Amino acid sequence: MAQPRTTSQRPHVLIVGCGFGGLEAARALRDAPVAITLVDRANHHLFQPLLYQVATAGLSAPAIAAPVRFLFRDQRNLTSLMGEVTAIDAGLRQATLEDGSLLPYDHLIVAAGATHSYFGRDDWAAFAPGLKTLDDAFEIRRRILLAFEAAEREADPVRRQAWLTFVVIGGGPTGVEMAGTLAEIARHTLPGEFRNFDPSSARILLLEGGPRVLQAMPEVLSASAQRQLEKLGVQVRVGARVVAIDGTGLQVQPDTGDACRIDARCVVWAAGVAASPLGRQLAQAAGAETDRAGRVLVQPDLSLAGHPEITVIGDLAAARSHAPGKEPRPVPGVSPAAKQMGRTAAANLRRRLRGEPTQAFRYRDFGNLATIGRNSAVVDLASPLGPLRFSGYWAWLFWLFAHVYFLIGFRNRLVVLIDWASAYWSRQRYARVISDIPPQPGKDG
Amino acid sequence: MAQPRTTSQRPHVLIVGCGFGGLEAARALRDAPVAITLVDRANHHLFQPLLYQVATAGLSAPAIAAPVRFLFRDQRNLTSLMGEVTAIDAGLRQATLEDGSLLPYDHLIVAAGATHSYFGRDDWAAFAPGLKTLDDAFEIRRRILLAFEAAEREADPVRRQAWLTFVVIGGGPTGVEMAGTLAEIARHTLPGEFRNFDPSSARILLLEGGPRVLQAMPEVLSASAQRQLEKLGVQVRVGARVVAIDGTGLQVQPDTGDACRIDARCVVWAAGVAASPLGRQLAQAAGAETDRAGRVLVQPDLSLAGHPEITVIGDLAAARSHAPGKEPRPVPGVSPAAKQMGRTAAANLRRRLRGEPTQAFRYRDFGNLATIGRNSAVVDLASPLGPLRFSGYWAWLFWLFAHVYFLIGFRNRLVVLIDWASAYWSRQRYARVISDIPPQPGKDG
Repeated sequence: MAQPRTTSQRPHVLIVGCGFGGLEAARALRDAPVAITLVDRANHHLFQPLLYQVATAGLSAPAIAAPVRFLFRDQRNLTSLMGEVTAIDAGLRQATLEDGSLLPYDHLIVAAGATHSYFGRDDWAAFAPGLKTLDDAFEIRRRILLAFEAAEREADPVRRQAWLTFVVIGGGPTGVEMAGTLAEIARHTLPGEFRNFDPSSARILLLEGGPRVLQAMPEVLSASAQRQLEKLGVQVRVGARVVAIDGTGLQVQPDTGDACRIDARCVVWAAGVAASPLGRQLAQAAGAETDRAGRVLVQPDLSLAGHPEITVIGDLAAARSHAPGKEPRPVPGVSPAAKQMGRTAAANLRRRLRGEPTQAFRYRDFGNLATIGRNSAVVDLASPLGPLRFSGYWAWLFWLFAHVYFLIGFRNRLVVLIDWASAYWSRQRYARVISDIPPQPGKDG
Repeated sequence: MAQPRTTSQRPHVLIVGCGFGGLEAARALRDAPVAITLVDRANHHLFQPLLYQVATAGLSAPAIAAPVRFLFRDQRNLTSLMGEVTAIDAGLRQATLEDGSLLPYDHLIVAAGATHSYFGRDDWAAFAPGLKTLDDAFEIRRRILLAFEAAEREADPVRRQAWLTFVVIGGGPTGVEMAGTLAEIARHTLPGEFRNFDPSSARILLLEGGPRVLQAMPEVLSASAQRQLEKLGVQVRVGARVVAIDGTGLQVQPDTGDACRIDARCVVWAAGVAASPLGRQLAQAAGAETDRAGRVLVQPDLSLAGHPEITVIGDLAAARSHAPGKEPRPVPGVSPAAKQMGRTAAANLRRRLRGEPTQAFRYRDFGNLATIGRNSAVVDLASPLGPLRFSGYWAWLFWLFAHVYFLIGFRNRLVVLIDWASAYWSRQRYARVISDIPPQPGKDG
């Protein structure tokens, strides 16, 4: 294992994870007199807000995945390593990588993010994949496309309907995007392509355990989102708790009565999120606490009590926002919050290097937006004049430009725009690649 | 298994494989009074001439893979099925799919293509993947990118050099493209991105068993191709026979002396091609012969002796070109030949339906071109005034536009052009996605 190039006696900053938080922290340390090592399991930074587009064959993976070392090629104080931090020794100040090699640090920023949670039912993972990484997106894309292919080959109408029933579990932003896009694929992309059934007969179900979809939004926008989903052809069921999932369907317990079975071959999990397991290991090693979701409880300045050299940010941190004169409030698990924490972590590290006191994290909430489908979205913006709420076409346009804008630094925004414009006008989805096809029997290799 | 929609008593044409041959045959039967079923293992038609670009992270997969059912959505006499034909019963006139279901046919066009051949050393496949499918390209891309990542983490200089040694086996068009592009990546794309080594210290070796690269080309162009490769930094070794490959390197026997060992962690196989195993099964079932490469010997009209209802085309056929007044000549395994055979198969099928005699296949050779890298290519065009041969920048430009032109019908030629233009000016490669990352220990799912 190569040692990071610790130039002279510059303090060594180890950043774990290159999501929105880790990326922003690393960028904000560009001119700092430190030697940074950035470690991530993947070789790319993922623009997660558009991951559902890869899962639904609307965008290709390279459009939303930027190579980490390309992003930092000009930042000479940073070394990027592809690898996985499996444990942190807070006493010895070193991290262990998956091959057992050790990375010592003077300052540590942990931004390892979150993964799916099946609420103790990890056996469901095989039947209902979640959507966090590119590999997850490929698996979901594969299952969606294969379900339609299987339906074309299936002669039995009952079994065919099971292939044509798509269930999305969880009514948060990802679940709403997935369900809306699936409905569009069935109603607008695929018709005309099959000879043995009508793709618009596909049934898209969105199941939410709580009383409404998009619970982080005001009620009026939740109601609007549900109407827009239903207009696209999605069947929305709130207060619907999933009690069993297997390879051919699932069991749902509505608030109102007995559990019923839904035969469905393609089920997507968008219900639960848990912090990366590194959080618990770190908390144990550093004498910190974790909350129920496995997130590490941090000090107001995002560091750990007794370990000012360790900072935890992003979805891995159970952080609070400290606005002057207000009660501390929990920070939501959204990408703007992760970015802001990354900047605060970097600023506090600089202060510490200069011997100045650190500052408490303050989350600036610019609002919330979620897309549903073509021309459909909801927007809830914070403004000095009070909240600005709108939905439908203009909300969708706002969502679109906000996302293309934040793709800055990515590959080719122009290519993404052309992809989208062409998908918009043709209602086509070009990234319909089923890979991982089992090898031919007898094929060499 | 759904039966194909055999409209009234229209004869049922089964086409196996949607490469260049199968695609062209299906298209040419657009207005024929037949019911077509097109079966392919993949859900996409692959533009194979650019597959090396996916393997070297220059293009994303959807740019060169068009969904089969999208291509044929408006051809109402065609049903497309994703599936694999495992056997053909020439007596009963039916094909067996991988799940055991049966597809009866009146006319059969087999265009199942070719796969890699390791000349009896199938154990080499694990160490030296070949390049025929998208999955192959992803695997090679993954190995190339991971080799550079491993080099950045490797402290031992000898082991690091093994990670930075890339060997391409086979000096045909694919091998030349792969080696040239690898050299460009090492010399022009990656410098500046690593802190522990200089990517331009990577060694790219192209091994060819025969006396020269691009043996299908005139000698003068082979020599030019070798010079262009060497200018890019590729070490070309002709007359070099590989006698062993393992996970850490390979053994090469030069014409001139003792075998020597090359330590290399990334080896690409571009040496051998064999017909799909379906060829031998079909030949056995229909009483036909195969050649050494497993290709089926066909009649002048591409049908099988004694089975005029079976036609074999593309890389699976050992076909001859029958030009009036000339000796029959073998047809090369290139995509224009496969397309022309597809058109001949369709035309002969129409003749048969009308009760007319079929015609012999005649291959029109428009020339040959191969690219080597940025601004480097060789072109050998047939023209009425004699062959037109050129190489270097203008050959490369010719190659580029020929390929973009033949991407017609594909997704978004504009997107591919922008990708290429931007790659050309920035020397960047954006599709640097390593997928298939092993899941985190303890991760749910």
